[in-house]
Amino acid sequence: MRNVDENSITQIVLARHAQAENPRLRQIVTGIVEHLHAFAREVELTEAEWFQGIQFLTDVGHITDENRQEFILLSDTLGLSMLVTALNNRKPAGCTESTVFGPFFVENAPRYENGDDVANGAKGEPCFVTGRVTGLDGEPVANARIDVWQADSEGFYDVQREGAQGNRGRGTLTSLADGSFHFRSITAESYPIPHDGPVGRMLKALGRHPWRPAHLHFMIEAPGYERLITHVFRDGDQYLDSDAVFGVRSSLIADWQRHEPGRAPDGTQIDTAFSTLDFTFVLNPSPARPVPR
Amino acid sequence: MRNVDENSITQIVLARHAQAENPRLRQIVTGIVEHLHAFAREVELTEAEWFQGIQFLTDVGHITDENRQEFILLSDTLGLSMLVTALNNRKPAGCTESTVFGPFFVENAPRYENGDDVANGAKGEPCFVTGRVTGLDGEPVANARIDVWQADSEGFYDVQREGAQGNRGRGTLTSLADGSFHFRSITAESYPIPHDGPVGRMLKALGRHPWRPAHLHFMIEAPGYERLITHVFRDGDQYLDSDAVFGVRSSLIADWQRHEPGRAPDGTQIDTAFSTLDFTFVLNPSPARPVPR
Repeated sequence: MRNVDENSITQIVLARHAQAENPRLRQIVTGIVEHLHAFAREVELTEAEWFQGIQFLTDVGHITDENRQEFILLSDTLGLSMLVTALNNRKPAGCTESTVFGPFFVENAPRYENGDDVANGAKGEPCFVTGRVTGLDGEPVANARIDVWQADSEGFYDVQREGAQGNRGRGTLTSLADGSFHFRSITAESYPIPHDGPVGRMLKALGRHPWRPAHLHFMIEAPGYERLITHVFRDGDQYLDSDAVFGVRSSLIADWQRHEPGRAPDGTQIDTAFSTLDFTFVLNPSPARPVPR
Repeated sequence: MRNVDENSITQIVLARHAQAENPRLRQIVTGIVEHLHAFAREVELTEAEWFQGIQFLTDVGHITDENRQEFILLSDTLGLSMLVTALNNRKPAGCTESTVFGPFFVENAPRYENGDDVANGAKGEPCFVTGRVTGLDGEPVANARIDVWQADSEGFYDVQREGAQGNRGRGTLTSLADGSFHFRSITAESYPIPHDGPVGRMLKALGRHPWRPAHLHFMIEAPGYERLITHVFRDGDQYLDSDAVFGVRSSLIADWQRHEPGRAPDGTQIDTAFSTLDFTFVLNPSPARPVPR
């Protein structure tokens, strides 16, 4: 131990927590130390670069508060969030794939009846969504809890808006006996992730844009099935191939049909253009069927 | 890109910054992404563990302010700081080795004359330090700028104390024509790094203590030589084999001689026990001589 040098240090650090009581914590910290040290050796990190890294993380910490989670944004933009989602949601073919949760979900969103307008004042072109929740064999899943949330047409989720305007563009519904559900909302549009902070500066320095393709978030839960957290992406969006947070899976892209002003699916007369979306969500049974790696 | 999955994602993320203008930034971010993803795959990081990590980093960010740098503490306790120091300070045999800078250096510390007391009121047993600055061939280095800093006997640096009490236990001296210098201060004692925050909780969970062995910090600069940042450690300290920040190198351990009350090296009569330390600092010429790897 007294001869700590660039060769011996990694083993010395690892040996120091060899007696940690929690074996999983030991394993995780061992992995962190090994990879952190290997990274510094491989790139021959300079002292000035190390200090820039310290300052960057400090900035990420200082901009993070109860309304903004810049560490999640950092994880998202480095592809870590999507990787962790993929590692933890291996599913049999036919199941709806998972994607990143994102930082904008809110507990206790309002409960709506099928047919209600979850926009609740959020700005945007009207959109009528129909969907179905099924199991792997096509069986309808009744009474599933369906959480939906989305940004408005200016690219902001309600929680990003200053002041207390309440829940907009989010809500909880329940599937009917045949597994179907339907609601009114607004048409999803592409939007940039918050990029006025350190993560935005990082993206700029890397020659990357901060945009996410248009999408609608879903979280679906029902007894006997694994919880599904996913998005439905809008086909034709220019950012489908370059999502800033790497959340796009081909199977999640759907056709948002555009309609001229006229009679909407719910029978009301709409005097602007509107869109319709239909999507079927296939849940994985719980306990999950084994998935080949 | 549309088929992002656990296998394809790393290459997709790397390809996204392939056009970054700064090749060094590209290299560093590539290393970060590769190791971050490899870590998550190897330990099969769960979503709950990922979120614990986000919360831990958030806590590290929120406790960090102008007086406390918890990210540096995290880097120190994971051995990254010492590794970066070692990677960037390879030296020919015979040179004084470098160790971690630490977070407690202060710019513009008071200038002292040789023989002055740099403790300036810091509590502790008196210590009389003599030293010499030389080059690799033993040539004396005159007019070297010598910064010293240390904790008091209660384990705190002046900057960790509440309120403005000024610089204590730190100062800047200049070597004499024969390369020598001498000053009075207090005897270094072992102390715990700040452990009332997230890094302290991490150390506890890992079964690690937060103590550093007693040491005196030096930064020495002279024209024609590389700047030296190092500590001198006090032989016999119980934490020499388990420094919380992995900074100990055998060549930096010195004998702090203890003396009964009586006549001090500077001729004054001391009515408490005191210590003496003598150490020679050998600077690396600049530009540095090539060092075999």
